[in-house]
Amino acid sequence: MLKEIKLSPIGYVDTKSVGKEIRNRCNISRIVLDQGLTEGLEGIEDFSHLLVLFWMHMVPKEERRTLKTRPRGRADVPLLGMFATRTPYRPNPIGLTLVEILEVKDNIITVRGLDAVDGTPLLDIKPFDYWDTVDEVKVPDWWIRLEGKQHNI
Amino acid sequence: MLKEIKLSPIGYVDTKSVGKEIRNRCNISRIVLDQGLTEGLEGIEDFSHLLVLFWMHMVPKEERRTLKTRPRGRADVPLLGMFATRTPYRPNPIGLTLVEILEVKDNIITVRGLDAVDGTPLLDIKPFDYWDTVDEVKVPDWWIRLEGKQHNI
Repeated sequence: MLKEIKLSPIGYVDTKSVGKEIRNRCNISRIVLDQGLTEGLEGIEDFSHLLVLFWMHMVPKEERRTLKTRPRGRADVPLLGMFATRTPYRPNPIGLTLVEILEVKDNIITVRGLDAVDGTPLLDIKPFDYWDTVDEVKVPDWWIRLEGKQHNI
Repeated sequence: MLKEIKLSPIGYVDTKSVGKEIRNRCNISRIVLDQGLTEGLEGIEDFSHLLVLFWMHMVPKEERRTLKTRPRGRADVPLLGMFATRTPYRPNPIGLTLVEILEVKDNIITVRGLDAVDGTPLLDIKPFDYWDTVDEVKVPDWWIRLEGKQHNI
């Protein structure tokens, strides 16, 4: 059984946004890949969206042992297992966000909707396709209450 | 700049499927979490779908340096940058698959649609919500040709 897995960042996130601006769905960021990986982007501009996997490096090591959480600390949401939420406080704090591609130039992709702070190490980017979506999705009531909407538009 | 990131598996994939069966969208697998993480699942059964992040441990180290690829080795698909495809041959071979939850019991989640071989180390599981999907998706012509369909039903 594999005990430890080692990854190296493929690049980093470049954004001027700070604080609450990061979570704004219209937030603009640049995905800056290591220059040696530029060739690996060829053809990515023919997709409209990407799945970005990043390392949430600001999560303190001790928080990776969290088991229960209340999303956004709100009292009107039940205490939940952290795997039932998108909290950064999880055993392997890998962030995963669906973003829109705005521009691809050399080793840089400008995207809309990435909720990662400036300097966040990137682990992978994957093109978003029809296998990444389903017609019928069920989410709990607390999720609808928290997000105040039913769909990403 | 972070040079190395260390992860520990949170569990593994248990499936009887082998070879081509793995890629069948109806493939049934069990996500077996480390028993110490069972509490972290509370509330996950209220979602219909999960995003499963796993470590594609069968990818040889030298293949992680691949820059260009032809999806499924097919001559009728253009030579593409690996970031424009879902090839396992990428710098950090993290697999990401949207699956349907069939049952949650103790530390085990039975799911449909996970394309990971038996014994695959798990990195994270995240509930799938409306922020993980968009109404208008564009994919290249080669993708439609390869998958022979436009939507996951």
